[in-house]
Amino acid sequence: MSLYLQCLEDARQRGSTTISSEALARLGGATSAQIRHDLAIFGSFGRRGLGYPVPELVAHLREILGLNRDWRLVVIGAGRIGSALAQFPGFADRGFTIVGVYDNDPRKIGHRWDGHPIRDIATLAADAPREQYDIAVLAVPVDRAQAIADLVVATGITAILNFAPVPLRLPASVTVKTVNMTMELELLSYALAHRR
Amino acid sequence: MSLYLQCLEDARQRGSTTISSEALARLGGATSAQIRHDLAIFGSFGRRGLGYPVPELVAHLREILGLNRDWRLVVIGAGRIGSALAQFPGFADRGFTIVGVYDNDPRKIGHRWDGHPIRDIATLAADAPREQYDIAVLAVPVDRAQAIADLVVATGITAILNFAPVPLRLPASVTVKTVNMTMELELLSYALAHRR
Repeated sequence: MSLYLQCLEDARQRGSTTISSEALARLGGATSAQIRHDLAIFGSFGRRGLGYPVPELVAHLREILGLNRDWRLVVIGAGRIGSALAQFPGFADRGFTIVGVYDNDPRKIGHRWDGHPIRDIATLAADAPREQYDIAVLAVPVDRAQAIADLVVATGITAILNFAPVPLRLPASVTVKTVNMTMELELLSYALAHRR
Repeated sequence: MSLYLQCLEDARQRGSTTISSEALARLGGATSAQIRHDLAIFGSFGRRGLGYPVPELVAHLREILGLNRDWRLVVIGAGRIGSALAQFPGFADRGFTIVGVYDNDPRKIGHRWDGHPIRDIATLAADAPREQYDIAVLAVPVDRAQAIADLVVATGITAILNFAPVPLRLPASVTVKTVNMTMELELLSYALAHRR
């Protein structure tokens, strides 16, 4: 669904007002039958021979994905990963706004990071009720990830994007997505090693 | 397998010479039966009552994953994503070395980026035979990703780590892994939106 939205937004930027399931399939790397099936689940949008109305479908997919509102992100670990994330294409215009940045390094605390003041991780629990963070981005070392995740969850945050290449054990009420770049690279080296 | 290796390397750093399947399961978030099953596929390592010998298992997993040699990475797009990747924990010590950085921005070409000179993307094809790049990291805008991937593949590179949130259409002989941070965040916003 996220990929369809990406393709539809590209199409809208190019000025398209309607798009056929065939064109959407070509953009998204699926079959047109798959597209029609997937989109039918979310209501009847396509008109036979006319295709899908791009703006309406964009609005509907954004609503389903929870992108029709702003999400307040807190970045834990004021390093390059969080910084890269903040600059990621399509990130800010999808409603993800970084509103707080924390670190535990006294050399960093109080300095600015991409315009945000870096706060002391020790103040996270006190700040959280006021700041209403929705999603925590964990960009911390592997051996600190679980402890910091526990701290984050204790403040009431229920969604975590984890960049530490380690599985986190958290209550079922918390949604965690892990971006494990090391593992992706290892899958590539595995493929290369076994191809030769 | 990548996660087992991570857990085993952590154990080795803490000075462990053997580890039980139960301890490995606890670290990796699996069951001990699953661990024994997975590791049995790659040869008989564990000794009943003694556990797995950590250094031997680390060496064996590294060999299977193709980590017992160096991989030469070329980063296309001298921005923050590539920079974050280069600093990623456990990245350099797994044998992934950035040996070339390219961009198409005349303001960047010739400058240094994390110690590497930024080269003109127009010279990639000419450099590739000499540089023997194994893996290309694509950190380029969505609307340029397919064209640059085609260029990379034409130079003979057969493994791509793609950070553009778009599927790439490439020959079956090329292995592509996409790290889609926008999609991971959208999965979180979807979970939050439907929980409330």
